[in-house]
Amino acid sequence: MRRTRFDEANCPLARTSDLLGDWWSPLILRDLLLGRQRFAELEESLDISKGVLAQRLKRFEDEGIVDRRRYQDNPPRDEYVLTEKGQALWGVLAAMWQYGDDWLFDDRPGAQIELRDKRTGEAIRPQMIDANTGEPLDLPSTRVRLRR
Amino acid sequence: MRRTRFDEANCPLARTSDLLGDWWSPLILRDLLLGRQRFAELEESLDISKGVLAQRLKRFEDEGIVDRRRYQDNPPRDEYVLTEKGQALWGVLAAMWQYGDDWLFDDRPGAQIELRDKRTGEAIRPQMIDANTGEPLDLPSTRVRLRR
Repeated sequence: MRRTRFDEANCPLARTSDLLGDWWSPLILRDLLLGRQRFAELEESLDISKGVLAQRLKRFEDEGIVDRRRYQDNPPRDEYVLTEKGQALWGVLAAMWQYGDDWLFDDRPGAQIELRDKRTGEAIRPQMIDANTGEPLDLPSTRVRLRR
Repeated sequence: MRRTRFDEANCPLARTSDLLGDWWSPLILRDLLLGRQRFAELEESLDISKGVLAQRLKRFEDEGIVDRRRYQDNPPRDEYVLTEKGQALWGVLAAMWQYGDDWLFDDRPGAQIELRDKRTGEAIRPQMIDANTGEPLDLPSTRVRLRR
């Protein structure tokens, strides 16, 4: 029997998939990226159970995605601030956003919500390019190989 | 109590998250994008159970992500070909790939596997830009709002 071509632990996509890992994590990250930082805000915005939210935030903290800060002592209240590693997930989420808007709204002309640039007010259309050439990513001409 | 700001069904990111939904789906899509189309190839490459693989492929078929084609009748054998809607997921997966390579390999200098352009042989570095301006996505100046 042929061996697995590359083990999952060595695949960057597998690691990111493991980090996001479930339906809730991208939505919690979305809200954090939009500036909702307090436990109660997230709980209310997402309509999520306290237990699930606490578990996901703990995982993000352990992974260095968020820093937890106490903003009130009595009663104790925490807020969650994205680290640089957490903010860098915006590229992944923006790609998911655009895909959903392009392909998963057959029923009407796109989602009713959109991304805008705060400074210019213009619509934002996330797109993946190859930073080395400036060209859009071209699947047929991409291959995966062992790094030398 | 304040209402949820936008319901999940209307958020493109929520829909994409629901489509990917678990750890296996991005890895199956990765292999399909790399040209592995037969059930047995996928099973072997991913070291996944037949039941889980069949379930995920059925979901992709129902969602219009893959077309199933019988390539042999006796015994019956199917292959799975990405549709245009499936190929469009490459942007999401490339973003996950690059994030993993940039942030989830503290232990060594990046993953041992990399993306290359078949034609030029050069390394590919996926990056998200705003297609309307050509500039890299800028999180602090992005906001979400209702489409008019």
